[in-house]
Amino acid sequence: MAGYNTLSGRDLERIRVLADGVFAVAMTLLVLDLRLPAGEVADSGALRDQLGELGPEIAAYALSFTMLGTFWLAVHAVLDQARGSDRTLAWSVLTFLFFVTTLPFSASVLADHAHLRLAVALYWANLAMLGAGLAWQLWHVSRAGLAEEGEALVLVRRRLVLAQALYAAAALLALLSPVAAIAGLALVQLFFMVSPRLPWRT
Amino acid sequence: MAGYNTLSGRDLERIRVLADGVFAVAMTLLVLDLRLPAGEVADSGALRDQLGELGPEIAAYALSFTMLGTFWLAVHAVLDQARGSDRTLAWSVLTFLFFVTTLPFSASVLADHAHLRLAVALYWANLAMLGAGLAWQLWHVSRAGLAEEGEALVLVRRRLVLAQALYAAAALLALLSPVAAIAGLALVQLFFMVSPRLPWRT
Amino acid sequence: MAGYNTLSGRDLERIRVLADGVFAVAMTLLVLDLRLPAGEVADSGALRDQLGELGPEIAAYALSFTMLGTFWLAVHAVLDQARGSDRTLAWSVLTFLFFVTTLPFSASVLADHAHLRLAVALYWANLAMLGAGLAWQLWHVSRAGLAEEGEALVLVRRRLVLAQALYAAAALLALLSPVAAIAGLALVQLFFMVSPRLPWRT
Amino acid sequence: MAGYNTLSGRDLERIRVLADGVFAVAMTLLVLDLRLPAGEVADSGALRDQLGELGPEIAAYALSFTMLGTFWLAVHAVLDQARGSDRTLAWSVLTFLFFVTTLPFSASVLADHAHLRLAVALYWANLAMLGAGLAWQLWHVSRAGLAEEGEALVLVRRRLVLAQALYAAAALLALLSPVAAIAGLALVQLFFMVSPRLPWRT
Repeated sequence: MAGYNTLSGRDLERIRVLADGVFAVAMTLLVLDLRLPAGEVADSGALRDQLGELGPEIAAYALSFTMLGTFWLAVHAVLDQARGSDRTLAWSVLTFLFFVTTLPFSASVLADHAHLRLAVALYWANLAMLGAGLAWQLWHVSRAGLAEEGEALVLVRRRLVLAQALYAAAALLALLSPVAAIAGLALVQLFFMVSPRLPWRT
Repeated sequence: MAGYNTLSGRDLERIRVLADGVFAVAMTLLVLDLRLPAGEVADSGALRDQLGELGPEIAAYALSFTMLGTFWLAVHAVLDQARGSDRTLAWSVLTFLFFVTTLPFSASVLADHAHLRLAVALYWANLAMLGAGLAWQLWHVSRAGLAEEGEALVLVRRRLVLAQALYAAAALLALLSPVAAIAGLALVQLFFMVSPRLPWRT
Repeated sequence: MAGYNTLSGRDLERIRVLADGVFAVAMTLLVLDLRLPAGEVADSGALRDQLGELGPEIAAYALSFTMLGTFWLAVHAVLDQARGSDRTLAWSVLTFLFFVTTLPFSASVLADHAHLRLAVALYWANLAMLGAGLAWQLWHVSRAGLAEEGEALVLVRRRLVLAQALYAAAALLALLSPVAAIAGLALVQLFFMVSPRLPWRT
Repeated sequence: MAGYNTLSGRDLERIRVLADGVFAVAMTLLVLDLRLPAGEVADSGALRDQLGELGPEIAAYALSFTMLGTFWLAVHAVLDQARGSDRTLAWSVLTFLFFVTTLPFSASVLADHAHLRLAVALYWANLAMLGAGLAWQLWHVSRAGLAEEGEALVLVRRRLVLAQALYAAAALLALLSPVAAIAGLALVQLFFMVSPRLPWRT
């Protein structure tokens, strides 16, 4: 039994290719829910009204796409630290990928029910589980001697804590207003996307 | 004819990339069936009720995701043993992948009819066909001299027999109660996921 | 203009990765149409009836999966002959991939209308376009000096002509009976899958 | 913070694999909307009528497939110029990929409302955003010293400007007639696909 377990899941590149595939499908499926009501419309004005009604959904999908982008960068930043893989690392990435596949669902619940606290809570829980998956990977990589302790590992850990703290803070705004919480999450994302290009970066 | 057949399907890496792609799509599509009923809900309480009703489906999808993870690890553990490929190995992997693509269907039948023996039987038959695909690969790889006989091959074969025996035993519980059979399958999966981290592993 | 055209599409590996991705998605989507009617069923007997009605569809999807497998092996057998790529080869593969993405549609038309000649004709036309795509690739690879003339190229060409002749002959059976034509196509596929393991292969 | 940002998104090959995955899924999903009305048809004549009604949609999907093919070639032509990657390049490609995932939506709006200017405008806006994504990549790659200035970079830039100018000119035809605009876009695509094989290429 132990023998087989040391045989499987050892190829880090394989795990990354699977992860890229799952992210690519999840990213593309996000937009699959975007649909106009069936049937002809009379003119461009009527079509504009229909597109306008999709506005909140488009915003929710754009937000979720940036989330998937952020976590895609994050999982590779984590795996970059590992010299090799083992079965436990494979399962920690698979668990993480499970919550990647649930994000289109959480995003569609959020898009349909942006005014409900529970929808924000569900979405945040999905982000938190993705963070937990990354934490498990980081913890295992250190513990199993798959990565060298060093500055890079410290930076990756710190970023994970920072990101999850900001997501949690933004989600807490839902106690005041669910829409404010969504705006908060969007702001955090914007910050992560823009920050590498800020003038004070070293 | 024979000439062409020796030309095609010889690239093991190609086969693995296709397999990773099929697994990535199947894993992500599992969750695609997860949907709330259309239409607005009044408050978080109503949404909680709707999410609660999805509970069994979410459990069935989580189970199926771990199944796909297990078989993804397994097919690569098998292909790790092969030094090269030929057309027969390619077809044995393609046959295996066909039953990967049917798992989302079997899983949705199980999710919708968890109380029926036939749904458990169908799901188990899908797992058994996946196992048969792996067995065909292992048998061909030995017979065609694509792998060196050795301890690794023995370990992979033994694990395949163990896993399929446990799945069959769990499925037989459906004679008593279909839900017990599903719980049994989940337990087997939990065991496979946790076992690499048990203290007595060598 | 010419300058840019000589810059793009030169990476053969890139084209293969895209092709693997399109095949993986198309293979998995084939089965996506497979669905039981919504709603509870009373017992395993009722579920068996529903599954039984899906029989022809499952057969059509299994046939189409083997088709995709055959053409996946074929496109890589063709690209194996090329030393490099250019923009024209990239477009010939992209055109081929377009007809890969239409096969799930042709297959679903065939599954729903197995008794109509036109459904068989549409399905066969899709196979013929896939063959035409491969022929374009083979022709260009020779003409542009991307492949060395030799036995391998001859074998690949001969197999393409043989396969397309057999598909056309099977499709012609639709003049007698559409179902006979489908059985004929299935027989051709079985022959291609089994032939590498026949005792008289060299 | 800056530290983490210099750690992530540095692997150009990873970004390309993700891009190939997103393109492969988007290309295959384009055709997913293609469906015959449910229910039996009496004979091949009735099926021919149904297929005939799908004509405009098939044309719209074929056009969009060539668009995705063109932009797939383009993004790799751009990334071919880069020696390495950084987090900003990763985000510029992710932004580009977002508009790849929206193209199936824009294409389905165009297919359903080919007679409306706004549908053409939306489709063109999607193409323009894809072009903007490429421009951002090219600009960043130069500015961050990730590419050597040279003839290749000039050719890639010129082609981007030419393509976007032609798309805009074709889209402007919608002021006269939306269908003429779509025909114009198809002509531009045909030109890009055929041009590498024109006799006066160098």
